Amino acid sequence: MRELTVNLGDRSYPICIGQGLIRRAGELFAEKAISRKSPLLIVTDENVADRWLEPLAAALEASGYAAARFIVPAGEKSKSLDMFQNVITACLEAGLDRKSAIVALGGGVVGDLAGYAAASYMRGIRFVQVPTTILAHDSSVGGKVAVNHPLAKNIIGAFHQPELVLYDLDTLLTLPPREVSSGLAEVVKHGLIRDAGFVEWIVGHAGQLLALEPDVLGHALYKGCSVKAEVVSRDERENGLRAILNLGHTIGHALEAVAGYDELRHGEAISIGMIGSAMLGVELGAPLEVYETTKRALESVGLPVALPEHYDTDAVMEAMMHDKKFGEGRMTFIVPTAVGTVEIRNGIEAGMVRAIVERLKREERWT
Amino acid sequence: MRELTVNLGDRSYPICIGQGLIRRAGELFAEKAISRKSPLLIVTDENVADRWLEPLAAALEASGYAAARFIVPAGEKSKSLDMFQNVITACLEAGLDRKSAIVALGGGVVGDLAGYAAASYMRGIRFVQVPTTILAHDSSVGGKVAVNHPLAKNIIGAFHQPELVLYDLDTLLTLPPREVSSGLAEVVKHGLIRDAGFVEWIVGHAGQLLALEPDVLGHALYKGCSVKAEVVSRDERENGLRAILNLGHTIGHALEAVAGYDELRHGEAISIGMIGSAMLGVELGAPLEVYETTKRALESVGLPVALPEHYDTDAVMEAMMHDKKFGEGRMTFIVPTAVGTVEIRNGIEAGMVRAIVERLKREERWT
Repeated sequence: MRELTVNLGDRSYPICIGQGLIRRAGELFAEKAISRKSPLLIVTDENVADRWLEPLAAALEASGYAAARFIVPAGEKSKSLDMFQNVITACLEAGLDRKSAIVALGGGVVGDLAGYAAASYMRGIRFVQVPTTILAHDSSVGGKVAVNHPLAKNIIGAFHQPELVLYDLDTLLTLPPREVSSGLAEVVKHGLIRDAGFVEWIVGHAGQLLALEPDVLGHALYKGCSVKAEVVSRDERENGLRAILNLGHTIGHALEAVAGYDELRHGEAISIGMIGSAMLGVELGAPLEVYETTKRALESVGLPVALPEHYDTDAVMEAMMHDKKFGEGRMTFIVPTAVGTVEIRNGIEAGMVRAIVERLKREERWT
Repeated sequence: MRELTVNLGDRSYPICIGQGLIRRAGELFAEKAISRKSPLLIVTDENVADRWLEPLAAALEASGYAAARFIVPAGEKSKSLDMFQNVITACLEAGLDRKSAIVALGGGVVGDLAGYAAASYMRGIRFVQVPTTILAHDSSVGGKVAVNHPLAKNIIGAFHQPELVLYDLDTLLTLPPREVSSGLAEVVKHGLIRDAGFVEWIVGHAGQLLALEPDVLGHALYKGCSVKAEVVSRDERENGLRAILNLGHTIGHALEAVAGYDELRHGEAISIGMIGSAMLGVELGAPLEVYETTKRALESVGLPVALPEHYDTDAVMEAMMHDKKFGEGRMTFIVPTAVGTVEIRNGIEAGMVRAIVERLKREERWT
């Protein structure tokens, strides 16, 4: 088992990565001093539930925990205020108290929904992340939790750190290839913002990553989580530095919004967004190598690097203007200056961004 | 103008108490470095809106702020998740960004609803309290914000401190007598938990308080807010000490629940609850003076000190068992040990509490 710590003073917590961790959940919860006297609520989705809910609940119950279950439909539509209210109802019906914890078993949707419920129930109770996707190596660390509003994604939420992240690699071994590639987008991102050597390592191990070799995958997730943990430790509430984690997300979120959140996987959207950011970086003076390495790394793990032509540039620009990263009317982008280094650039002109969206459509088709 | 500070490190904030402060809102907001570049949203209820919304908006606009308005129906039913979603929609429609603030103009319902929206919108934006009731001297300080769930009051919320509390005494001068008395219940509470001399002062100035003499009222609110601020500064998230602010609330909330939140004003319910707590204190060894002084102080400001006979003791006990203050199955009460001093007592037997509920019905009728 690999272990690292997110250092946040009295809100610090461990991330445990390895095989067979769900079987050991009772012991690991107890080590983290999660009370056995107060009931837990496991929140999961219908897909994950089939395979992992009973093993997790059984492991907890064998260690003396009471574990209620709440299953939501799979997919982004469960990240709604209505479903949030249903989770709170389940908390009340299961008798959760101030010493209880909510356990998120699943990917980003489940983690965000259950995390916001944990942030809000009784003004905040404990929270454990048990991620079951590669993408969730990003979302499960750092305490950003949220649900969607019909007019805006992730607009209703909190910063609420988990007590523990239990990353059982066994849950990843049955992921379909498209989900694997999508999840690796955030792993590549962590290299691009902080660690050029890790980007090279990814390119060199892309085949093993796509084949889900546990030790290689465990190392990639450990490195990705380490970058995330280091950045979050230095700027928990995104007053500055933490914004670098949004590399590729300004364009990416706009693409997701235009696509109705369904046509593109999150990792695919931010892959295209990271290509756009690299183009922007080169425009602003970064060496061409930044663009070439970004493209090579994303392609190596099977991700798209061009925008399908049918996306309407006006619609993409409009969606970007609504994005919450535009404080006080200016456009802010995370822009690479070298491989492994990015900076936060304010005052980027909309015209320059529009030209890049257009250019993304002229990249080699990825389908 | 009286001013005091809630000391919470980088979350510290001033409470300004005086007449004519709404007219000066623009200047006071600007002193607190609330951005003029980002729009504000004023949330208020239909009753307060008639009298104070346009004066506040005009004062802000005269200082260069853009101030959108959102008016909710008066009453506890607006503290719902549905109304919360409507406030978030208003934030989006008004274009609030991460530098914006939500301004709560009203009593506890508006403060709790708007505060939870400010805690959640974009994972937390700024928040200003402009309380317009006496009761809100308590709820507007300390950062506890929440909405209700159909099964439980205040169960969905956050700790989210305001940037500024602007307490304009002019808004209080038209309060109906029953609201004045109800509001003074929390003022008396602040004396009972921390300051015996203040309790005597209240009894000695009860007539002037009930007559809403601005200088006397301003002093009472300053003292009440000072106690609240001191306790919150020492235990922001209610890990221990802060629970003493719940004096009278365990029984009080149960009475409100049984009454359907309408028959009893909050202050009336906790007045009866504080009598119950005083009885419990005497049972557990406090001098009889604790009970006598509690009763005298509450009666002096026109508050009920007995429970109407039609309240069903079983229903009250049942409601108490559902209260969120019972961690891990034990019953916890805030119990006076002397006038101006309380302690947190765990492990109180349900039988003893039941006897006190019964005894509260045998107190002299208050209607």
